[in-house]
Amino acid sequence: MLIVMQAGATQAEIERVLARVRELGFTPHPIPGRHRVAVGITGNPGPLDPHLFEVLPGVKEAIPVSRPYKLVSRETHPESSVVEVGGVPIGAGHFAVIAGPCSVESREQVLAAARAARSGGAQLLRGGAFKPRTSPYAFQGLGRQGLELLAEARAETGLPVVTEALDLHSLEAVVELADCIQIGARSMQNFSLLREAGRAGKPVLLKRGLAATLEEWLMAAEYILSEGNRRVILCERGVRTFADHARNTLDVAAVPAIQRLSHLPVIVDPSHAAGIRHLVGPLALAGVAAGADGLMIEIHPEPERALSDGPQALTPAEFAGLMAAVQRVRQALAPRAEPAVVPSGAPGQPS
Amino acid sequence: MLIVMQAGATQAEIERVLARVRELGFTPHPIPGRHRVAVGITGNPGPLDPHLFEVLPGVKEAIPVSRPYKLVSRETHPESSVVEVGGVPIGAGHFAVIAGPCSVESREQVLAAARAARSGGAQLLRGGAFKPRTSPYAFQGLGRQGLELLAEARAETGLPVVTEALDLHSLEAVVELADCIQIGARSMQNFSLLREAGRAGKPVLLKRGLAATLEEWLMAAEYILSEGNRRVILCERGVRTFADHARNTLDVAAVPAIQRLSHLPVIVDPSHAAGIRHLVGPLALAGVAAGADGLMIEIHPEPERALSDGPQALTPAEFAGLMAAVQRVRQALAPRAEPAVVPSGAPGQPS
Amino acid sequence: MLIVMQAGATQAEIERVLARVRELGFTPHPIPGRHRVAVGITGNPGPLDPHLFEVLPGVKEAIPVSRPYKLVSRETHPESSVVEVGGVPIGAGHFAVIAGPCSVESREQVLAAARAARSGGAQLLRGGAFKPRTSPYAFQGLGRQGLELLAEARAETGLPVVTEALDLHSLEAVVELADCIQIGARSMQNFSLLREAGRAGKPVLLKRGLAATLEEWLMAAEYILSEGNRRVILCERGVRTFADHARNTLDVAAVPAIQRLSHLPVIVDPSHAAGIRHLVGPLALAGVAAGADGLMIEIHPEPERALSDGPQALTPAEFAGLMAAVQRVRQALAPRAEPAVVPSGAPGQPS
Amino acid sequence: MLIVMQAGATQAEIERVLARVRELGFTPHPIPGRHRVAVGITGNPGPLDPHLFEVLPGVKEAIPVSRPYKLVSRETHPESSVVEVGGVPIGAGHFAVIAGPCSVESREQVLAAARAARSGGAQLLRGGAFKPRTSPYAFQGLGRQGLELLAEARAETGLPVVTEALDLHSLEAVVELADCIQIGARSMQNFSLLREAGRAGKPVLLKRGLAATLEEWLMAAEYILSEGNRRVILCERGVRTFADHARNTLDVAAVPAIQRLSHLPVIVDPSHAAGIRHLVGPLALAGVAAGADGLMIEIHPEPERALSDGPQALTPAEFAGLMAAVQRVRQALAPRAEPAVVPSGAPGQPS
Repeated sequence: MLIVMQAGATQAEIERVLARVRELGFTPHPIPGRHRVAVGITGNPGPLDPHLFEVLPGVKEAIPVSRPYKLVSRETHPESSVVEVGGVPIGAGHFAVIAGPCSVESREQVLAAARAARSGGAQLLRGGAFKPRTSPYAFQGLGRQGLELLAEARAETGLPVVTEALDLHSLEAVVELADCIQIGARSMQNFSLLREAGRAGKPVLLKRGLAATLEEWLMAAEYILSEGNRRVILCERGVRTFADHARNTLDVAAVPAIQRLSHLPVIVDPSHAAGIRHLVGPLALAGVAAGADGLMIEIHPEPERALSDGPQALTPAEFAGLMAAVQRVRQALAPRAEPAVVPSGAPGQPS
Repeated sequence: MLIVMQAGATQAEIERVLARVRELGFTPHPIPGRHRVAVGITGNPGPLDPHLFEVLPGVKEAIPVSRPYKLVSRETHPESSVVEVGGVPIGAGHFAVIAGPCSVESREQVLAAARAARSGGAQLLRGGAFKPRTSPYAFQGLGRQGLELLAEARAETGLPVVTEALDLHSLEAVVELADCIQIGARSMQNFSLLREAGRAGKPVLLKRGLAATLEEWLMAAEYILSEGNRRVILCERGVRTFADHARNTLDVAAVPAIQRLSHLPVIVDPSHAAGIRHLVGPLALAGVAAGADGLMIEIHPEPERALSDGPQALTPAEFAGLMAAVQRVRQALAPRAEPAVVPSGAPGQPS
Repeated sequence: MLIVMQAGATQAEIERVLARVRELGFTPHPIPGRHRVAVGITGNPGPLDPHLFEVLPGVKEAIPVSRPYKLVSRETHPESSVVEVGGVPIGAGHFAVIAGPCSVESREQVLAAARAARSGGAQLLRGGAFKPRTSPYAFQGLGRQGLELLAEARAETGLPVVTEALDLHSLEAVVELADCIQIGARSMQNFSLLREAGRAGKPVLLKRGLAATLEEWLMAAEYILSEGNRRVILCERGVRTFADHARNTLDVAAVPAIQRLSHLPVIVDPSHAAGIRHLVGPLALAGVAAGADGLMIEIHPEPERALSDGPQALTPAEFAGLMAAVQRVRQALAPRAEPAVVPSGAPGQPS
Repeated sequence: MLIVMQAGATQAEIERVLARVRELGFTPHPIPGRHRVAVGITGNPGPLDPHLFEVLPGVKEAIPVSRPYKLVSRETHPESSVVEVGGVPIGAGHFAVIAGPCSVESREQVLAAARAARSGGAQLLRGGAFKPRTSPYAFQGLGRQGLELLAEARAETGLPVVTEALDLHSLEAVVELADCIQIGARSMQNFSLLREAGRAGKPVLLKRGLAATLEEWLMAAEYILSEGNRRVILCERGVRTFADHARNTLDVAAVPAIQRLSHLPVIVDPSHAAGIRHLVGPLALAGVAAGADGLMIEIHPEPERALSDGPQALTPAEFAGLMAAVQRVRQALAPRAEPAVVPSGAPGQPS
């Protein structure tokens, strides 16, 4: 924390700031300047609220200088983490694609989608059984029955299942029947749910909130890690801006920025960012080129018949075509990406 | 829904669109234009997903023309609603102020704050017992004990209590001990919580999400009303933008815009929008001048000692001064505001 | 500037930072902390680019601690400024309303609007002769002829004229025929135009850019003041956000925030923020309640016939009604506002 | 235009709308619905202002259904355009990289940068001679002397020059000495400058404004085309959002979205989006993978010594490394990208 005094701050005002810092148990370091005095603080165990000092007379600003997160930080864990989902590794050079329908609608649909996911080259199956819907009148998902259909599709295709939990009730079912708990964008700051997901003993896919900063997103992950669960995968899915040509604005810079701040794997969901099919491919490839550790893509055997988000779902053929392009881009990047991310012999190294 | 065909759409493409509309059970109305054809749709019970049609060949755009909400809409309920909280009416000309500390910290603090709220002119007491905190390491509130302290403050001052529920667990305690369930900005799309709040038999104060459109906000309220609870108060608390001079950007236009779309009362929380004390007064007065049905303001007997959000809390003296100004501005608006909002003899008329 | 080193920065990396600071001619102040070292910098004449240091090895972040503007700053000029436009004072307790049509369309229209402005209580007349239009095919204004019509309206009503200059060509005509040069939102960072406006010898009304921070806005004003022209009025007119219920999001907190940072008067344009008539009144009153030094409002004798922005223009009767409410709110605020803003005997005191 | 009436609109209100449409010279098409009536409009030469109708009693909303731009639209010009800059083609499968320093600082610096640009694989040279700076006290560029140094670098390296014009004065010099006129983000709606650039007889690189929608951006291009200059290249450089981990948020979806709406080439500037070196490479590759027709990248022989934007400039070695990766990603995309964009035998086909 650095406290910047106003240009005309009196000696008494400065003394009061120093006294307040000592009173809180920390050490103040006055820095005299040409126009004003600043006061550095050391000895604090973690970040302080700037406003603690900004309310004192003569103080112009208090500026935090340390990050509030710890367990997710690359400073405390320099090697990239590998998170395994049902035996599929993600992160530190391991790339994985999660594909499947927005919602589980029927046995036939989810099996067809799972086969298309596997034959297109996906390693994991997605599908919503509990759906967060803006309208109370919209289709809310098949619930537990949807999870059972996903489990059946897993039995047939061998693809582990990633699916969203909305609340404590659906979390229980997801933990019982699926391989990875998805926390959606609208739930990113549902702190009770984050804590429970942290205790559930399954890996967690944490989507970025619609208007979340990277710090808030990492703090949400910190909730999960602080409960003892280090198996968190972050997922960029676009943020809300004034732009209206896509459903959300894919913040592709978040991928390398997160990779610098945190050891956790980060993947990209181009489907929810795009909102419309013809943007999904370009955004998927952009995410891969920016260094994402994986993709999450919506596919549907018959998008025109989908009960939710059909227009952004790829057909099996489109998905297979995109996966081939993803593969080629991954190879094009290979000489550049791997060595930098995983130092030889590091814990995160691919086996 | 209006479907706009591309300039060069073929007759076969147009026929396919008409067939698809009929297949869904609705009636298509082709509108030939100079450059292109459009197709209106009637007979649909509610809004359709534009993408249902945008995936068809030759379609340029599909434009929704009806609103997705019903119970909250002023179209279906033209008179402004009055919501009572512990006997205090809000809406349709009834103005109410909710004041109190960000967090309940101690008996002494909450009693001092409640007395300051009452003597300053507030009708309701706020105070957080269950706190949504960005960091898992920050103070999370006193929980049930906090609610009991609030109940004690209510017993002494007579002010009904508004306090936040974060999840089903805290909701139970809030319903038992408080008078109004607050749903915070981060929980605006926690649909399980909204449904439970709708069944809880207490009025609900629903804050706007950080990046929520008015439609999403009203749809969140629709979740509560669709469970049979019509006692919902909306609260504008600022949205997230690029601007960095306040914690959030108070969207004061949301007040008259909501009042046109919905019959529900809408109040303003200047404290969370401001994030810093010196902006609270101007934003509170701006909200009142824009026609808000009430205010929610953080006060603290000793802001410098607050465990959370101290820098935005007003002192008892500042609060009393602000309330006097609010009162004067309310009177200044009086001849203009009331008659327009509450037609004589209407259900929403103040008694 | 405060440079924060990474947790594991080496002594050599710290030395290099110290050397770089000295090389730039400034003084480094190392501040050792528990986890990391920070380095304060003094002796710099103005703000430094943080990236100067962030590119050095071992540096985590460089944080600016002084503001880049000077002449507009309240630190260098503590009293509120009064800017006179054609004899009408604005700022430091002097409140003024600028009203008139979006575009000058005809002699009849501008004279009718000017009479309505005066009789409603405006002190100044607005009207666009040179129009910035998103489309090259839209009405671009009457140009010099429009200015002449405004001058004619001034001659009849006595209201000084505020009108937009788009470029050096139109600036010349505006300086010749009008009383105040308006710089529009789209031109806020047209630095050539700002410089020329600074040399033109007329007061300048500077609108905030669509996505401008307060710092960028004040720096744009600094361009004008740095050419020797201190007569600048700032105008908040809404910013661009995700919100879609108004044309722009009026950032009402900008008013008190600017008044704290700068001595320049700041007014509010509710018409462009609203984009639709029924929001204009509430936003105007909100701006007044937040402490604005004036308003700029679009009126039109027959809004349904306006060539531009008709839907947001008030009729003469609506304007007169709003002005009465503005007057009442101003009086309601009076005991609170003035003493705080204008210290007794200060240069900015109203006569 | 589709006019949607309120649920309870009277027959008289509907008649008035029909009459108004006819009065404007267009043809109304009433569409009766279950809950309300809508009115389609045909016969209008271009887009209408929705507010023309929204001010009429009984009207709920007026929804535009045609795009306001023409010459830039792919509907009117289905083949992708190729724009040549000094003999270098861009667009329709032709990919080009523009590299060079943010600002021209000295002969030595610009020559070193130009050599690095060429040897790294760039086809065009950039460099600012006239700089738009937020602060009047910052380095404003070398002006005409800078252009002469760029011309000297072109003479040595053979790279055509792209450089920014800020106003009519600098435009003249840019047209005289450079090969392509750059219009910066802050000038995107400087309509006088756009018109003059349209008349200047040189290709124009038009950057997207900080908060511009695609429609506004395309309308700005329309200004240039409407003056007879079809040689416009669009450049996405990030938009302003709440996100704070990069200088701007690169909106990578704008690339495929523009390519669908317009025939003009669109390139990506990762340097201004990133604001910091370590994000430039990932964003450049993301832009390429999304289908951009080129890149604009800042390089500097000694970034630590740069007078502006040094922290985002790549060193010559970093640039060469990035270009190799760009080349590999381009090849990886090749089988997918070209056939879709340029139909065999189409005018835009690469030779």
